Amino acid sequence: MKLSARIQSLTSSPIRKLSPYADAAKAKGKKIYHLNIGQPDIKTPDQFMESIRTYDEQVIAYGNSKGEGFLIEAIRKYYAEKGMDFAADDIFITNGGSEALIFAVMALCDPGDEIMVFEPFYANYTTFAREFGAKINAVQTNVTDGYHLPDAAAIEAQITPRTKAVLLTNPGNPTGVVYTQEEMDMISAIVRKYDLALIADEVYREFVYDGAYRSFGTMPELADNLIIIDSVSKRYSACGARIGCIISKNKELAKQIIKCCQSRLCSPILEQVGAAALYTTPVSYLEEVNQEYKKRRDTIVAALKELPGVVASDPKGAFYIMVQLPVDDAEKFAIWTLENFAIDNETVMFAPGNGFYSDPELGVNEARLAYVLNCDDLKKAIYILGEALKAYPGKTN
Amino acid sequence: MKLSARIQSLTSSPIRKLSPYADAAKAKGKKIYHLNIGQPDIKTPDQFMESIRTYDEQVIAYGNSKGEGFLIEAIRKYYAEKGMDFAADDIFITNGGSEALIFAVMALCDPGDEIMVFEPFYANYTTFAREFGAKINAVQTNVTDGYHLPDAAAIEAQITPRTKAVLLTNPGNPTGVVYTQEEMDMISAIVRKYDLALIADEVYREFVYDGAYRSFGTMPELADNLIIIDSVSKRYSACGARIGCIISKNKELAKQIIKCCQSRLCSPILEQVGAAALYTTPVSYLEEVNQEYKKRRDTIVAALKELPGVVASDPKGAFYIMVQLPVDDAEKFAIWTLENFAIDNETVMFAPGNGFYSDPELGVNEARLAYVLNCDDLKKAIYILGEALKAYPGKTN
Repeated sequence: MKLSARIQSLTSSPIRKLSPYADAAKAKGKKIYHLNIGQPDIKTPDQFMESIRTYDEQVIAYGNSKGEGFLIEAIRKYYAEKGMDFAADDIFITNGGSEALIFAVMALCDPGDEIMVFEPFYANYTTFAREFGAKINAVQTNVTDGYHLPDAAAIEAQITPRTKAVLLTNPGNPTGVVYTQEEMDMISAIVRKYDLALIADEVYREFVYDGAYRSFGTMPELADNLIIIDSVSKRYSACGARIGCIISKNKELAKQIIKCCQSRLCSPILEQVGAAALYTTPVSYLEEVNQEYKKRRDTIVAALKELPGVVASDPKGAFYIMVQLPVDDAEKFAIWTLENFAIDNETVMFAPGNGFYSDPELGVNEARLAYVLNCDDLKKAIYILGEALKAYPGKTN
Repeated sequence: MKLSARIQSLTSSPIRKLSPYADAAKAKGKKIYHLNIGQPDIKTPDQFMESIRTYDEQVIAYGNSKGEGFLIEAIRKYYAEKGMDFAADDIFITNGGSEALIFAVMALCDPGDEIMVFEPFYANYTTFAREFGAKINAVQTNVTDGYHLPDAAAIEAQITPRTKAVLLTNPGNPTGVVYTQEEMDMISAIVRKYDLALIADEVYREFVYDGAYRSFGTMPELADNLIIIDSVSKRYSACGARIGCIISKNKELAKQIIKCCQSRLCSPILEQVGAAALYTTPVSYLEEVNQEYKKRRDTIVAALKELPGVVASDPKGAFYIMVQLPVDDAEKFAIWTLENFAIDNETVMFAPGNGFYSDPELGVNEARLAYVLNCDDLKKAIYILGEALKAYPGKTN
């Protein structure tokens, strides 16, 4: 058989590509602090398994293609409590935020069309675009500006006739940036001016540490342009449930998305039962988790400040931080750290930064660290990182 | 926002598009016999929920992108017991057979490439192809030949330089055909001669009623060309679990498929736990289910023979039968039956046949009936169908 150029153009996930090295290190008995993947260690609320355990249908049957009504209602209510009045018809349950993104790309892009992102950006955006022959059109942001957006003129200068959407993560993965109201107004004006879709990936909405957060869903003037990507994965530490959703008030879009839903029949039923129960978790749970992550954010930022030659921004949300490392190549350094370095038989794993850029030549000496461990483990992990930086043959400091 | 030509080219599922009419009929208190969708009424084995109920990880975490090892091992063992020696590395867990098909299309087709199918065929094959800009190249089969294949010359005459794969369902959906050894040898020779992939959708493998069944996976000469699509949905009446897999010994393909798996992170964890437990169901379960469906097949074939003007084949496997109806338009007849017809406030729903053809002008007076109800209900459903045919204003008999 001949394989498609499409699939050969896909790149491996920067978050997961080094797993074979980690597996080899573990096989030798090394303990690894995983800062590479956004897998929280927070306990999933008991409601999830409790609701699933009581499920007692005789037949595990196909569900509704657009999602079960009880889950859609739970999500509708969650948004209503935040002042966003989506109708049940506006919400489509998906297999994680991933499938929500896939549906959005499918709905907006023909081959050759472009999706504008702000780099560094979540690596799988590139994969989802390439799967459908679309291109990523990346606008630069950088650590010294805290990854905030350039001005409207700079953004508009990069819009082409093939640009169909602006896709952003807010709060940001991998940057931790939270956009200001001014930035949101600017983006809103741009997408309306050029009749673009705004795909707002807001899965980290509950993880904001310095002040209030505003969803793009609260901006009525955006209603017809906005596609929200959401998920229970991070919000309720239920990444393995793979329950997300795509939300939009655009009626033409809704008419089309249902066809994508129907083609893959439905999302898994039990995980929908569990996800709906998660939305009954008291608000105090989200507040406590937020406090815990704020502590972790403060801990990792402080620990990184102690490392000579490391440049980090001051992330305001999500649970990632991008850092510049004083090394020749962060991927080589990551592999070296897994293979050749340990303190008391413990080492650290992180995601090489260039996977979060549109051009693999960019971000070569950068890394994404996920602060998903408790503060003690985080301190230890950053200590090991610092010692590894001192010992690494390719250091530039 | 502007929507893509891609998404606008997708058609609604013929199996689900009439659901609004069914919902309206139910709202008026009508009972509907659902012959439209392959949703078995067979009880899901208890192992499924029992295993899930005992799951007690504190964090519902991301799993392995290619699937959990315990599920892959369960599937490997199931195949080994059937004489097929797949390695764990050859098996990738997917979100239902649907995602397995999506990955296959993605791996093989660039825009404009073609997938050869034998029509009538499973309607979503068209959707999966169009989502990636690929085309369906449909070779005709027909009811009078029991939907068996034409000869090699006729098939080869339709192969073009853009043909990348032959995709077939065996046993057949919607036809119920089970290919003979001669047909399998012919297909094997053709795909090897033209270096095509053979995507063998064998999700109905356990539903064969007259004699033995042979998987394409038992043909060693095919190893490098073969991609098997499988799923627990029908086998264990667990359609709502959405657990399938893609299996191939082609190492180049495996290297690429993992990138698709990584991009959507993983399949849902609990449903994988349940699916692995399903594979511990005693073989006697599958034998009993097979006997039950054989009875149903015999029942529906006999009942349809009594209806004047109805032409049906003699299906050998799966749980569908395609019929020609003496009506102007089977979709109009289906809607009319839901809206305007009932006996004792009960009516019947089926899938219009043209949705299973590459050209909506074909199969206009055909329908797919799924014999997923018990024999008494099936008899009643076909009785209602017969009476509806007598009363329908657009009858041609």
